[in-house]
Amino acid sequence: MAEQAQLLRPTDDEARELARTLLRSARYMSLGVLDPATGFPFVSRALTAIDLDGVPVILVSALSGHTKGLKDDVRCSLLAGEPGKGDPLAHARITVFCEAQPVSRDSAIHQRIRARFLSRHAKAQLYVDFPDFSFFRLVPIQASLNGGFGRAYALTGKELIFPTATDESSWLELQNDLIEKTSEAAKFAQRLGLGDKNWRFGLVDPAGIDLVSSDVLVRHEFQHRLDLPEDVIHYICK
Amino acid sequence: MAEQAQLLRPTDDEARELARTLLRSARYMSLGVLDPATGFPFVSRALTAIDLDGVPVILVSALSGHTKGLKDDVRCSLLAGEPGKGDPLAHARITVFCEAQPVSRDSAIHQRIRARFLSRHAKAQLYVDFPDFSFFRLVPIQASLNGGFGRAYALTGKELIFPTATDESSWLELQNDLIEKTSEAAKFAQRLGLGDKNWRFGLVDPAGIDLVSSDVLVRHEFQHRLDLPEDVIHYICK
Repeated sequence: MAEQAQLLRPTDDEARELARTLLRSARYMSLGVLDPATGFPFVSRALTAIDLDGVPVILVSALSGHTKGLKDDVRCSLLAGEPGKGDPLAHARITVFCEAQPVSRDSAIHQRIRARFLSRHAKAQLYVDFPDFSFFRLVPIQASLNGGFGRAYALTGKELIFPTATDESSWLELQNDLIEKTSEAAKFAQRLGLGDKNWRFGLVDPAGIDLVSSDVLVRHEFQHRLDLPEDVIHYICK
Repeated sequence: MAEQAQLLRPTDDEARELARTLLRSARYMSLGVLDPATGFPFVSRALTAIDLDGVPVILVSALSGHTKGLKDDVRCSLLAGEPGKGDPLAHARITVFCEAQPVSRDSAIHQRIRARFLSRHAKAQLYVDFPDFSFFRLVPIQASLNGGFGRAYALTGKELIFPTATDESSWLELQNDLIEKTSEAAKFAQRLGLGDKNWRFGLVDPAGIDLVSSDVLVRHEFQHRLDLPEDVIHYICK
């Protein structure tokens, strides 16, 4: 998609890990859709969370431009990875082409996605149940990782996601239980060398877990995939 | 484009000023183009400067995905306005639909745009003259300003730009002269209440001027339009 083949580096494990971390740790991303009225690419900002299989999810109003775009044409893209200090182009970022899947409010997955989104963005509680708001899953098709000048990689969508966990309801239970475990969150944050803040756990999946404190989000990727909720409990309490 | 008419507030001077400031003070923006191979909207990050008439300019490599998109279809959009602390959606941002105009290296305006871009992004000196790099002017067509929850406005492209200054060569001379005036920049920064840094002047036009210190950029909008370079000298040295 983005770069000529001769400019791309071979995609290795390090590139894949950087790509996943950028995508999964972003509190918000730039979202590009096709504007139905004009055909222009329309770029806006959206809060993002990650579904249980690693697919990015957004919560949007039916009245907004991006939602109209996604309803008209499922093709969209996400840009993740915010610059810190220094040259903005020296900071890693990833563009992911996605296909949008609307999440119906009465579908089996709505409850899970709602819980996961709110575990990352507590303030969205104020509007998540408004009738004009709904979730979309943005399923990665292909991606272009830019790790800084001259460090471009192409990835497939499959390299960014993972199979859905087998027992979804037990993951939802874990998700809901973790919010209360603030003393465990504080200990886990200390193990990770994070500063002393009012940490709580945010969203969790077989690949990693969020630590959240007010508007600070730290996504921790597990050292290896954890297939069962009890593996996660063991990992964070060991 | 973005919001239903009934959600839009009437566009007043305050909204126009916010829109212009967001666009003109952004060191970088999210750029959306149409990917020629797939038709997907492709969002990436680009360093930005502002031409003498307020039109955003970018410097891009012919090998990059966004350049291929712009050469194939001039329709693009820019998202400006970075979130600070707190809820990312509470921070103002603007989406501008633009039409891309390539700037040929042998055109009359290339020298001006090159000088203006480098006055904002000194490090681009390293690659600005590489044969595969070139400038595009992204001419605003229409815009959607989001000043935070429930504060949406529509703007025309003309509300974001202004007539080109009459004597372009004297503005280029001013642009080149200002880079050296670091003691005046320090005094002007002090008048604006900015902290004590190694300030220098960056790009200048009839609407405002940049103060730059390493990777910090502060765009100051003049209280009224200054039609002549000597008006600017008087304004910053008074």
